[in-house]
Amino acid sequence: MTKSTLQLIFQELQDHQDEVIHWRRHLHQHPELSFQEFETATFIKEKLQSFGLEIKTNIGGNGVIAILNGQKKGPTIGLRADFDALPINDGKDVPYKSTNPGVMHACGHDGHTAALLGTARILSKYKDKISGSIIFIFQHAEEKPPGGAKAMIEELNIDEIDYIFAAHLASDIPIGKVAVGAGFKMAAVDKFEIIVHGKGGHGAKPQETNDPIVIGSDLVNAFQKIVSRRVDPLDSAVVTLGVFHAGNAFNVIPNEARLEGTVRSFSEEVRKQVKENIYSLVKGITDGYQASFNIDYLHGYPALYNPQKETAVITQLFTELLGEENVVEFQTSMGAEDFAYFLNEKPGSYFKVGSRNHDGRTQFPHHHPNFDIDERALLIIQETFVKIVSHYVLIDEA
Amino acid sequence: MTKSTLQLIFQELQDHQDEVIHWRRHLHQHPELSFQEFETATFIKEKLQSFGLEIKTNIGGNGVIAILNGQKKGPTIGLRADFDALPINDGKDVPYKSTNPGVMHACGHDGHTAALLGTARILSKYKDKISGSIIFIFQHAEEKPPGGAKAMIEELNIDEIDYIFAAHLASDIPIGKVAVGAGFKMAAVDKFEIIVHGKGGHGAKPQETNDPIVIGSDLVNAFQKIVSRRVDPLDSAVVTLGVFHAGNAFNVIPNEARLEGTVRSFSEEVRKQVKENIYSLVKGITDGYQASFNIDYLHGYPALYNPQKETAVITQLFTELLGEENVVEFQTSMGAEDFAYFLNEKPGSYFKVGSRNHDGRTQFPHHHPNFDIDERALLIIQETFVKIVSHYVLIDEA
Amino acid sequence: MTKSTLQLIFQELQDHQDEVIHWRRHLHQHPELSFQEFETATFIKEKLQSFGLEIKTNIGGNGVIAILNGQKKGPTIGLRADFDALPINDGKDVPYKSTNPGVMHACGHDGHTAALLGTARILSKYKDKISGSIIFIFQHAEEKPPGGAKAMIEELNIDEIDYIFAAHLASDIPIGKVAVGAGFKMAAVDKFEIIVHGKGGHGAKPQETNDPIVIGSDLVNAFQKIVSRRVDPLDSAVVTLGVFHAGNAFNVIPNEARLEGTVRSFSEEVRKQVKENIYSLVKGITDGYQASFNIDYLHGYPALYNPQKETAVITQLFTELLGEENVVEFQTSMGAEDFAYFLNEKPGSYFKVGSRNHDGRTQFPHHHPNFDIDERALLIIQETFVKIVSHYVLIDEA
Amino acid sequence: MTKSTLQLIFQELQDHQDEVIHWRRHLHQHPELSFQEFETATFIKEKLQSFGLEIKTNIGGNGVIAILNGQKKGPTIGLRADFDALPINDGKDVPYKSTNPGVMHACGHDGHTAALLGTARILSKYKDKISGSIIFIFQHAEEKPPGGAKAMIEELNIDEIDYIFAAHLASDIPIGKVAVGAGFKMAAVDKFEIIVHGKGGHGAKPQETNDPIVIGSDLVNAFQKIVSRRVDPLDSAVVTLGVFHAGNAFNVIPNEARLEGTVRSFSEEVRKQVKENIYSLVKGITDGYQASFNIDYLHGYPALYNPQKETAVITQLFTELLGEENVVEFQTSMGAEDFAYFLNEKPGSYFKVGSRNHDGRTQFPHHHPNFDIDERALLIIQETFVKIVSHYVLIDEA
Repeated sequence: MTKSTLQLIFQELQDHQDEVIHWRRHLHQHPELSFQEFETATFIKEKLQSFGLEIKTNIGGNGVIAILNGQKKGPTIGLRADFDALPINDGKDVPYKSTNPGVMHACGHDGHTAALLGTARILSKYKDKISGSIIFIFQHAEEKPPGGAKAMIEELNIDEIDYIFAAHLASDIPIGKVAVGAGFKMAAVDKFEIIVHGKGGHGAKPQETNDPIVIGSDLVNAFQKIVSRRVDPLDSAVVTLGVFHAGNAFNVIPNEARLEGTVRSFSEEVRKQVKENIYSLVKGITDGYQASFNIDYLHGYPALYNPQKETAVITQLFTELLGEENVVEFQTSMGAEDFAYFLNEKPGSYFKVGSRNHDGRTQFPHHHPNFDIDERALLIIQETFVKIVSHYVLIDEA
Repeated sequence: MTKSTLQLIFQELQDHQDEVIHWRRHLHQHPELSFQEFETATFIKEKLQSFGLEIKTNIGGNGVIAILNGQKKGPTIGLRADFDALPINDGKDVPYKSTNPGVMHACGHDGHTAALLGTARILSKYKDKISGSIIFIFQHAEEKPPGGAKAMIEELNIDEIDYIFAAHLASDIPIGKVAVGAGFKMAAVDKFEIIVHGKGGHGAKPQETNDPIVIGSDLVNAFQKIVSRRVDPLDSAVVTLGVFHAGNAFNVIPNEARLEGTVRSFSEEVRKQVKENIYSLVKGITDGYQASFNIDYLHGYPALYNPQKETAVITQLFTELLGEENVVEFQTSMGAEDFAYFLNEKPGSYFKVGSRNHDGRTQFPHHHPNFDIDERALLIIQETFVKIVSHYVLIDEA
Repeated sequence: MTKSTLQLIFQELQDHQDEVIHWRRHLHQHPELSFQEFETATFIKEKLQSFGLEIKTNIGGNGVIAILNGQKKGPTIGLRADFDALPINDGKDVPYKSTNPGVMHACGHDGHTAALLGTARILSKYKDKISGSIIFIFQHAEEKPPGGAKAMIEELNIDEIDYIFAAHLASDIPIGKVAVGAGFKMAAVDKFEIIVHGKGGHGAKPQETNDPIVIGSDLVNAFQKIVSRRVDPLDSAVVTLGVFHAGNAFNVIPNEARLEGTVRSFSEEVRKQVKENIYSLVKGITDGYQASFNIDYLHGYPALYNPQKETAVITQLFTELLGEENVVEFQTSMGAEDFAYFLNEKPGSYFKVGSRNHDGRTQFPHHHPNFDIDERALLIIQETFVKIVSHYVLIDEA
Repeated sequence: MTKSTLQLIFQELQDHQDEVIHWRRHLHQHPELSFQEFETATFIKEKLQSFGLEIKTNIGGNGVIAILNGQKKGPTIGLRADFDALPINDGKDVPYKSTNPGVMHACGHDGHTAALLGTARILSKYKDKISGSIIFIFQHAEEKPPGGAKAMIEELNIDEIDYIFAAHLASDIPIGKVAVGAGFKMAAVDKFEIIVHGKGGHGAKPQETNDPIVIGSDLVNAFQKIVSRRVDPLDSAVVTLGVFHAGNAFNVIPNEARLEGTVRSFSEEVRKQVKENIYSLVKGITDGYQASFNIDYLHGYPALYNPQKETAVITQLFTELLGEENVVEFQTSMGAEDFAYFLNEKPGSYFKVGSRNHDGRTQFPHHHPNFDIDERALLIIQETFVKIVSHYVLIDEA
């Protein structure tokens, strides 16, 4: 009996597992920090060139894209992988350990990239079976705001893309399973720094000062009410102060207090409102104490929203691919992901691919110095990508 | 050996003790509330008329004054007694118990008045020995702001008075002793009411409301910092909130919160600054929460300040009169007294006369339903007044 | 072509619309407060008797149940309606206006009851087509904790019921639509009252007191941190203080402050944790200020949880009945419903039936003095109940 | 006419002014930090030896005392000067500028020491005119708690001293004037460090942490109420937090917060109560939040209390010496002075000697890098000491 195109592709993916693992290990040994991924971009470019794909480099920084136009007209599918590493010292004892001290692929971006390269390699061989286009998007700098996604989108002709998808390895999901889910799945992340300008002086003469520690403490208190009183309890937001620094001597009232914090939210309404609340409270309370202030408020990544429709599509596709029991619910998180910018532009979905097995070495959380993956997950990423492609643009005939 | 005038007067005061006690008991039986002391004023007027003094009534309300011009020219001394009673039900079981239910001379003003009448009676007999004038000032409404003092001053020709003195009975000082002291001795008293206008709603939907209980609580917190941070620790101030009222149902966020409080201070600088701090904090914090407010801020009596010079004079006079061991330090208090208005106009001094003995009946605090005095204190008040007069305007020849 | 049983029933329900509306209007005219629904219970009993059903009264109070045993054995379905009214003065100008001043069916319980009576009437006629049992549960006192559900469950033989369902009219959902949804849909509601015992005294002498307004304000502040810091931002909880009462005079520090509030939550873990946090904060902070406290903490209704399975069943049934466009998402709310107790015992689902049309008279929110419904919703409730019954126990043959 | 002994002494003091100024300048050029005043102690010892006095060194550290026993029996007078310098870089441009970089006599202790040496020199010459003893106490380490006074007292035979006096130069008092005053004149100073042990974690997951910044802010708020509510407004206290340090990253909740502060007070009751309040609030509030804490509470110098009697004596003596207009009120301060330990043991008085003239160079505040004195003040210190001695133990015959 003749095999379908999809069957042939899956067979070939399986046969090429070692090559993709090899790529991943090469990347793992040569991690580069966000915005400094020059050699990684070159590696990606060279691989893509060897597949005979049309390539564009330096997209919004170190970003690389490869375009695969099928035989026939049809929709354009974007598949995205990120490729930057973290400022963490690799703590593992493996042959493919990082050779770049203090830098490590501790989040799995090496795996994302290797798997997307594998996907590009195989699909470039089946160009004539494709009625549409595929854009392989290799994105730099996901780990560090402002991130690479936004800049790439500005240089990409994003309107040419119809659907966009991305996978993320997950050490808290067992190998063989994928997690999908619609709606807000990752939070918007903002950062703020507030300086309360009081007036310092002798600790025994508070009346000659304007005590910024007292004012700062009132701000900490007031900020709690944003979440407790101003945000719908059925919605979600976080206002955390991670830093309160003021003063150097027990008996001297300092001139100023510095507070730093983060805001997490999903909806843009809540995000905007929390920011307004913070400004209003800081202004009102420092006014009330006749002090002054500075706020430096930075917008980080927006919330990641998986649309219902495309998420339902991939849920169905992955169920066919892996069985119902292996398609689990994507647990919403207050963490962030700059793929959110792509989903703000185009329909698609962001999903997770389990990379944990019974070996403790694959069970460390992301960003841990000992983080590692079950490399079979690389094949699963490729299969999910191909399965998505098959739904939208592949001519799957036996 | 011939007695001096002063000796004669003291003898006569002693001989007339019963009469003064009789007057005091009459007043005690017929107490009248502040601003309603009509019969009391009439009683005073009639007594003063019987002494042959020049009388003016309805001074600034129910106030009464009597003028005694001596044989010769000299300074004018003001002696002041207050005569209003309190909205307290007399709890004593004595023949001279209040006959006016719910109203009581629980602060000793009946005694002040009787003693000043006694003083007026005796001095009017020694007119030819006086080189100057004495104004006997019977003041209504000391207990209730805005008080009678301010209004009387506006109608009196205050510039004609050179020195002014007042005595107050004190159930915490033993009979036979007087308390004198220079500087700020009683506090300025202000009152404020703040309404925080938030927005009410369902307790389960805080995001649709603007919770005035939360804002009010922040105000309570912020107000503590006025005394802890803005007032010189070597100066004194009190900011007390006596009332916090908001809401009627456990699950309904109310529209508003009402806070009422009092401010106590001595110096006008601190008084003004605390008021400014309150306004600034209320405005700043309600602004910060995007709510609004009303403040009703009432200035009560100013702080009572006994000048060094005249206080030193009466300290010396009372030491001669009662012996060094019976002239004690006037303990400064955050309480209030509208005689402060007189001392803001003219030099003089305000002092206390002990009215407590070993009988528990004289040991109740002022404003207590069982308050009573050792009536021998009435004689002592008269003696202190006469002694003061003798210093300034009496021709004391043997 | 022969009609199926279901078709026949639906036809008959339609034909009897007026009767059900008549019942609803009778109930609307004779509303009774929670726990006082004596005549309402009698009305229900008499109607049920007229249908030839086996009836039990005074179940857990004024509750009434009717049991319909089908021809054959099969599962037992519970259908529940509540029948108490609210302490609201009917503000409408309609012929069926409340005749009981200050009491009103302002939440639609009259409609629930009439519709369940209609359902009982029709199903009792098709007894021979039923393979199983139906228990019609008429519950008193839904509006007022501790509510009627808990007490009825204790007296019912709840284990004999296999599935349980309830409908609620909704003035925010258009007529013709129903809202269904799985998971936590209504919140658990707890109530607390806290007395802070400080020590009162003169407002000018705070040092002799222990100011309960200051301590109470610190509690208000501390409670905000339960939601802002201790509850998962992806979960939901509310801690609202609806009452802060302390003091009567601006210059007197009171002995105590009274705070009343409500806690809303979904999971029992969060519910328990918030309660613990409240106790811990009240104890810690009053200890810190060397004051004492009392807490009266009342557990109200638990959170209402619609199980996935039965909710999926009715979603499918209602889609068949009303069309996909008329089955909408049940918006989760922090409000409460004591049907939650039934769902804690047995599988089933609670759903809403739209009662709003373009006439402003049906658009007032529940508990509004002008609340009213589009009475066509009564038919829809009956149809949904019958449809549910048809799935579980009706032999629907053409 | 023959001069009295006192007249002779005063004449001789005047004649030896240059020598004392020379000593002061030598000390000024060779300042040594608290507890490190080895060469200063040697300098003092050698000078005292040259006067033929009995000397004891290494008293409680670097302290030095010299004993002068008069011809006849009589009381023993202690005169104390301190001799340590400060960690300040001398900013003046004068020939006698500090030669020890980063160390400076910026408080006038060089002057105190030179003047006491001058006093010792002259009195040792009039030994036969003294009926009693004089102990010249040269104290190290006044600037740095635990200070030298306490340790010296423990080694001195303090019971042999009957009266003790000390002078302090004052750049805010004009040259020629001295300031005296009875009662509490300098504050007790305590220091505390509090660590709030919470639980750190990701800023987006507050529920998994126990936020010490929030708890620390509540402590700052609570501490304000010690002064605003627990201390008599007519008494004085300060609770200042000079340091609030917590966290290093905007999006990470830290494990702990560190607060450092100072408490100032006069009476031991208030001092003790404030400490208890701090402990109680820290324990209560951290308990309330289920966190823990450490407090390190250090008692510094006690409040300095000048007794009425001896202060009245020196007021009279200085009035005779300098004229009434040159004896001014000692302004109470919340600053500290370890001479307080001596006054806790023995009667005496601590007074200030003006060192400011119209030259801006003498008008810098103490502890300023440009601090300097009008050196005529050294003569005045000697005269005040001699005048005190003359009152208690000098036989002043013409």
